[in-house]
Amino acid sequence: MWKSERLNNCHVVRWVLFEEKLEVGAGRWSAPHVPTLALPSLQKLRSLLAEGLVLLDCPAQSLLELVEQVTRMESLSPELKGQLQALLLQTPQYNIRMRGARLCWDSTNLRKVSHDESGPRKEQRQSPLRQKLPAGAEAAAVLAGELGFLARPLGAFVRLQNPVVLGPLTEVLLPSRFFCLLLGPPTPGRAYHEMGRAAGVLLSDLRFQWSVRRASTLHDLLAALDAFLQEVTVLPPGRWDPTARIPPPKCLPPRHKRLPSEVWEVAEDGQQRRGPYRPSPELQRTGWLFGGLVQDVRRKVLWYPSDFLDALHPQCVPAVLYIYLATITNAITFGALLGDATEGAQGVLETFLGTAVTGAAFCLVAGQPLTILSNTGPVLVFERLLFTFCRDHSLDYLPFRLWVGIWVATFCLVLVATEASVLVRYFTRFTEEGFCALISLIFIYDALGKMLSLTRAYPIQRPGSPAYGCFCQYPGPGENVSQWTWTKPNARDDITSMELGLVNASLLPPPECTQKGGYPRGPGCHTVPDIAFFSLLLFLTSFFFATALKHVKNSHLFPSVVRKAFSDFSSVLAILMGCVLDAFLGLATPKLLVPTEFKPTLPGRGWLVSPFGANSWWLSVAAALPALLLSILIFMDQQITAVILNRPEYRLRKGAGFHLDLFCVAVLILLTSMLGLPWYVSATVISLAHMDSLRRESRVCAPGEAPSFLGIREQRLTGLMVFILTGVSIFLAPVLKLIPMPVLYGIFLYMGVAALSSIQFMKRVKLLLTPAKHQPDLLFLRHVPLSRVHLFTAIQLACLGLLWIIKSTPAAIIFPIMLLGLVGVRKALEWVFSAQELLWLDELMSEEERNIPEKGLEPNHSFSGSNSEDSELMYQPKAPEINISVN
Amino acid sequence: MWKSERLNNCHVVRWVLFEEKLEVGAGRWSAPHVPTLALPSLQKLRSLLAEGLVLLDCPAQSLLELVEQVTRMESLSPELKGQLQALLLQTPQYNIRMRGARLCWDSTNLRKVSHDESGPRKEQRQSPLRQKLPAGAEAAAVLAGELGFLARPLGAFVRLQNPVVLGPLTEVLLPSRFFCLLLGPPTPGRAYHEMGRAAGVLLSDLRFQWSVRRASTLHDLLAALDAFLQEVTVLPPGRWDPTARIPPPKCLPPRHKRLPSEVWEVAEDGQQRRGPYRPSPELQRTGWLFGGLVQDVRRKVLWYPSDFLDALHPQCVPAVLYIYLATITNAITFGALLGDATEGAQGVLETFLGTAVTGAAFCLVAGQPLTILSNTGPVLVFERLLFTFCRDHSLDYLPFRLWVGIWVATFCLVLVATEASVLVRYFTRFTEEGFCALISLIFIYDALGKMLSLTRAYPIQRPGSPAYGCFCQYPGPGENVSQWTWTKPNARDDITSMELGLVNASLLPPPECTQKGGYPRGPGCHTVPDIAFFSLLLFLTSFFFATALKHVKNSHLFPSVVRKAFSDFSSVLAILMGCVLDAFLGLATPKLLVPTEFKPTLPGRGWLVSPFGANSWWLSVAAALPALLLSILIFMDQQITAVILNRPEYRLRKGAGFHLDLFCVAVLILLTSMLGLPWYVSATVISLAHMDSLRRESRVCAPGEAPSFLGIREQRLTGLMVFILTGVSIFLAPVLKLIPMPVLYGIFLYMGVAALSSIQFMKRVKLLLTPAKHQPDLLFLRHVPLSRVHLFTAIQLACLGLLWIIKSTPAAIIFPIMLLGLVGVRKALEWVFSAQELLWLDELMSEEERNIPEKGLEPNHSFSGSNSEDSELMYQPKAPEINISVN
Repeated sequence: MWKSERLNNCHVVRWVLFEEKLEVGAGRWSAPHVPTLALPSLQKLRSLLAEGLVLLDCPAQSLLELVEQVTRMESLSPELKGQLQALLLQTPQYNIRMRGARLCWDSTNLRKVSHDESGPRKEQRQSPLRQKLPAGAEAAAVLAGELGFLARPLGAFVRLQNPVVLGPLTEVLLPSRFFCLLLGPPTPGRAYHEMGRAAGVLLSDLRFQWSVRRASTLHDLLAALDAFLQEVTVLPPGRWDPTARIPPPKCLPPRHKRLPSEVWEVAEDGQQRRGPYRPSPELQRTGWLFGGLVQDVRRKVLWYPSDFLDALHPQCVPAVLYIYLATITNAITFGALLGDATEGAQGVLETFLGTAVTGAAFCLVAGQPLTILSNTGPVLVFERLLFTFCRDHSLDYLPFRLWVGIWVATFCLVLVATEASVLVRYFTRFTEEGFCALISLIFIYDALGKMLSLTRAYPIQRPGSPAYGCFCQYPGPGENVSQWTWTKPNARDDITSMELGLVNASLLPPPECTQKGGYPRGPGCHTVPDIAFFSLLLFLTSFFFATALKHVKNSHLFPSVVRKAFSDFSSVLAILMGCVLDAFLGLATPKLLVPTEFKPTLPGRGWLVSPFGANSWWLSVAAALPALLLSILIFMDQQITAVILNRPEYRLRKGAGFHLDLFCVAVLILLTSMLGLPWYVSATVISLAHMDSLRRESRVCAPGEAPSFLGIREQRLTGLMVFILTGVSIFLAPVLKLIPMPVLYGIFLYMGVAALSSIQFMKRVKLLLTPAKHQPDLLFLRHVPLSRVHLFTAIQLACLGLLWIIKSTPAAIIFPIMLLGLVGVRKALEWVFSAQELLWLDELMSEEERNIPEKGLEPNHSFSGSNSEDSELMYQPKAPEINISVN
Repeated sequence: MWKSERLNNCHVVRWVLFEEKLEVGAGRWSAPHVPTLALPSLQKLRSLLAEGLVLLDCPAQSLLELVEQVTRMESLSPELKGQLQALLLQTPQYNIRMRGARLCWDSTNLRKVSHDESGPRKEQRQSPLRQKLPAGAEAAAVLAGELGFLARPLGAFVRLQNPVVLGPLTEVLLPSRFFCLLLGPPTPGRAYHEMGRAAGVLLSDLRFQWSVRRASTLHDLLAALDAFLQEVTVLPPGRWDPTARIPPPKCLPPRHKRLPSEVWEVAEDGQQRRGPYRPSPELQRTGWLFGGLVQDVRRKVLWYPSDFLDALHPQCVPAVLYIYLATITNAITFGALLGDATEGAQGVLETFLGTAVTGAAFCLVAGQPLTILSNTGPVLVFERLLFTFCRDHSLDYLPFRLWVGIWVATFCLVLVATEASVLVRYFTRFTEEGFCALISLIFIYDALGKMLSLTRAYPIQRPGSPAYGCFCQYPGPGENVSQWTWTKPNARDDITSMELGLVNASLLPPPECTQKGGYPRGPGCHTVPDIAFFSLLLFLTSFFFATALKHVKNSHLFPSVVRKAFSDFSSVLAILMGCVLDAFLGLATPKLLVPTEFKPTLPGRGWLVSPFGANSWWLSVAAALPALLLSILIFMDQQITAVILNRPEYRLRKGAGFHLDLFCVAVLILLTSMLGLPWYVSATVISLAHMDSLRRESRVCAPGEAPSFLGIREQRLTGLMVFILTGVSIFLAPVLKLIPMPVLYGIFLYMGVAALSSIQFMKRVKLLLTPAKHQPDLLFLRHVPLSRVHLFTAIQLACLGLLWIIKSTPAAIIFPIMLLGLVGVRKALEWVFSAQELLWLDELMSEEERNIPEKGLEPNHSFSGSNSEDSELMYQPKAPEINISVN
């Protein structure tokens, strides 16, 4: 009977991609980790294999035949042979649900495989690991241990002619091609166990597999092992604890680097990367009027049928729900903001209607149908400024706005005709960040300002302030003093409507007083107590709740589905919670104003805006000036968003349509201007969320391996459904008017803070406050002196300050020109910073600047050279940088 | 002229303990990281050294001589020799403030050393690295590179007879003993650079140094290299990106494991560890009455003079300030709680006085003078229950309490006499956690309950509620209607004190009305608006602010001194902020009640409590019953705290005094009972904070290395100063009464939540909600099945629920017995869980249970065996577990 000398040190290990140890006490597999080996165990394995038995293309058809082959050819005594055969054929007893392990098996994977969990076949079939393995996976078994009756080491490496299911040896029922047996007499330490681990790691290495499958002699096998040794990374002793488990890295070196090309082309599924920031072919100038538009239409028409067929996938249902809720949350908050900004000229109803109509239309015909339109930050800010301008100069707002819209559409058509979209490459990160930071700051400032103005509308009642005293006076002659009928102070309820005798007054609350024909009199009549602080509480609660829910995603509590739901619906949940809190206490907080009928918010206007109204005719010409400003804004916002959405890392197959999208936006602006609806452009964040909810990812991935990104389910149907639902939601008015305004202000603040903190600029501002020792190991900090980074940040801060000052003056409406001015500042920075510094701080988009003469200065985007110190950071799939506009 | 072919790939690297690369672009050293080498570069280095020049005990006295020695003995043409000599003697141009590096030097450290930063000696002297190196540090220089004019590789390894300052070669002016030159013709890749790095890593390895210092032949050198290779850890390719930088691990394998004993005994400074949880010698039973007490006194008397002399260190000043502020914060919050709980029988003044008197006395005579006494959680809870009991049974509280105190002192003396403190080993983590969780929950419940009761005292005014209407009625006969003089509604200020004519009333606010002899009349007179929500805001603000400030420590913003200050003074800052906010708005929030004179809070009593008061004589005997309960509580609280404070990982030199401490507590309880002051026992958290502020740490540590803990500055003076200052603070009353109560409730909540979240029990509760995949790699999860962990947690939860139910019944006062019952439950658990499981889940303290028969089951606390899979977690210095009582 084969008894392990080290019963309690029995170890079962499996490798799929990373290493997992069977934790016998806990009865489960450990967390996956990078396998670490001792160099001597690899060397001992090599010598054991060199002296031992190597069977290549062994014809065994079953475990029994394999065991016979392995033991027959050894120079063993018959008695030993029998003992060994009996042991090797015995069903392993180290069931994962059992405590006392009898034998020590190690097993490993080939392409992607695994190890034993239990004897019975039923459990092998039901192993949860099975689902994580791709079709065609093979297993390999490594058995290593110490046997008291052995006098000298026994090593055997077998490659089977045809992969064979090795029965109970593997955790999952998979055919095995390789089998490795490493036995020897008891030794101090865990030499054979470590050798077994080394063999397992080797067999799970793609390149070693590739070589060993083609090996024809022992020499080839050893050469493959030596090639493996040439590639290993070594950690010195004394600087690293060899027993520490290294968690799986976020990104692995690409496979093709280590394998001959024919292998990785299959393995990598032909996913060639396009270089980052190389201008897309859609942005090549044709030189013809409307040439870009025509090309866009031609390209997209081919995909049109598939744009609907591709939507037939269950993943689209949750995507529609998610984006629908995000869209109406946006519509409610931005509608409320618009209502405030235009003093009721437009409101929530217009926002809903406009969102539904323009969104649906855009999804049907646009170049990038995944785009979600929104009356986002910059345009909303402009609408507010335009309204203020009209009010200050006593212009009729909507007719003037109609003419602005007509001019904007005209200018945009000119931009489409001249293929101006190719200019987008001059918008670098510097411009984007200035743009986004300004809008975010306006959001934050507005949210806080609106809360403050609430405390003026509902003043806080300090001691000594005229809080008390309001009674209800009725007109008419006085009566007798004797009519004073005072009840006991305890029975307060009775005296509320008590008549105050001679003065013909009562203590009725103001609304009821007015109802009964009286006049509320006294300093306390116009104050509603508790509203100010309760509003502040609602404001803070919704802000913190939304922020906290957004971060639930990064916690480890709850299953990931629940976490994702909390995170995705953070705004909706925060608004809901605010409403519940408000309804529970029943205070008269200011609520969202929603028209109860389907008619424009502004009383007395029809759906069509009259072309002149009270304005004189020449204003229709003068409107061209603000229209120019708005065109700049729309062009910048629309095109920067389009570039971000069409970045190569999203692997879109159906191409972009920059010109077509701008054309659609122009037409829709004309339409919304005529109907008096808000103006819409592409919204970065919610469109990215839309794309993200339609990600296609690899289904099978090994424990510890992140699923790989395959592309986006590009189609038009989810967007269309979202906007049809939004249109239906117009009839939600009875529900919407329950929403307290402070809750919405809290959501504004959250949006502003979230947008601001997502840009790299804020990271650099934080660097200003971080001592050098604690600074994160950011790529640009490795290549640009800290003082230069700080200078760049300081210049950005100064620009932002200047923009803010302009925004605060009466000339605020010209801020789009100032945003454009950022492009100029960025150009001027080339005299202050070297090309290399700008490359790191402000990834370039323009072509001429990319051709920097010195080699080695440019960040190494190819994976071929082994020269780059930073290549580990290059392996990371480019994360979408959400760095423009507020939702 | 020697010109590097690869100008832009020039790399300068230094090793002190970890590797730092000179980031030429950024002009600074990279973050320290674990050096990773490619195995081939180590092998190539070996062959280069084997073929090259090895000079052991070279007599060179300067760089010039060294260079001559190295070049003379090479088989070089005279021309080459000249070229080489000129180059090696040239001052390196790779100043850290310069961009274009000329030569590629690598340099390394010996024991602890470094590399070049600049040529001039002045900068070498001022290098900030200098301060991080211990006295006697040596440098070593490694020069590696590719030279176009070389036809074949040139390797040289020099050990100098006497360490020599190699001039500009090293960053810091240190003598060098080793010098390594690795040159060769240009090759693809960075072969020589990598070899240089390998040499640097080797020379910074303690064991390699030890061997090479003793080497007498080339063979010894190569043997040392081979020994190094036998110890390296190998990471397989394809599972690890070789360019990734591994941050320094928190704990390194201990040096003595790799070095012959004579070396590490010096290196480790003789800091032998005591095994965890081995009962301290102070807890050995003598078998004599008061034997333990006598031994404690004998032991401590010897240290008494040094207890004052050791305080003469500047570190003690900030420690006093920190602990003083923490102490008065505690005194204010617990005093307020006590005032609430005893309805004014005791209050803030008593708490301050008691803290100062007992604290100072304890510091002067106790066995562990670092202990800070506090009227902490459990005892405070008991005082509240005792007061409720007295009130419900119409007993005179303070006299009854005096007798309880007398009996407690008696019982404690019996416990001291019988050396009962040795029983402390039966209190395991299970008991501690039940104890702490119950008290924390009571705190949280009380804080929330008190806030809720505030909203009843200051009701929220909903629409329709009788908020409006309060006027001031004056006694006297009515006057004429015509006297109604109504001002315009706009000028509200004018009508406040308007006479209401006939009814002889005004709209004066109630306080002013009463002042003028009128009576406030109407339903709104007794409501103060806005207070409820403002109190809630203050409550939430102080809670979140304190929590956020506590976590500032873990952020990376601000220098660490600022972070530490924010974190240490989080409660003080949160209270301050609450006061400022309250003062700014000036609302009539409820404030802390502080007597303005130095007399007891209870009106009409002197400082001495009369022994009977209104109670009958037999109550003095009956008081023995509650005293028994309180004795259990005090014994548990005091002794568990004492065990925690005297844990071996704090490396206290002067020993503990368990019996002496309990004796002091007993005497002080007698004293405070007589004076009607609160009862005091040792407080874990604040005492640990006291010890922490007196940590002695190693001054010099390499970049990336955490400073090592040397011990605690044990003395009696800091504690004494803290309590003298606390005594003086009694006269702070005018300031203290500005503190709003909701702010203090927020701090209670914070303390409860902080204490609750610090215990391992909460980690396990979180595990219940965490999917297995995301669970942290906790040691006990590796060894105990998850279902058993959950069962253990569930039993703890059930116990806690039971304790809570008992606490909520009229029998609440017997809860100390129930806490003692936890010890019984823990004993019963031994039938449910195996000894091994309990070992992992509930580290044992009792001796008999530590002797588990099976070897290998016990967590391996020694570092000798290489068998343990978990040894990496054992290297960690035991972190103080703050798991008992609330501050």
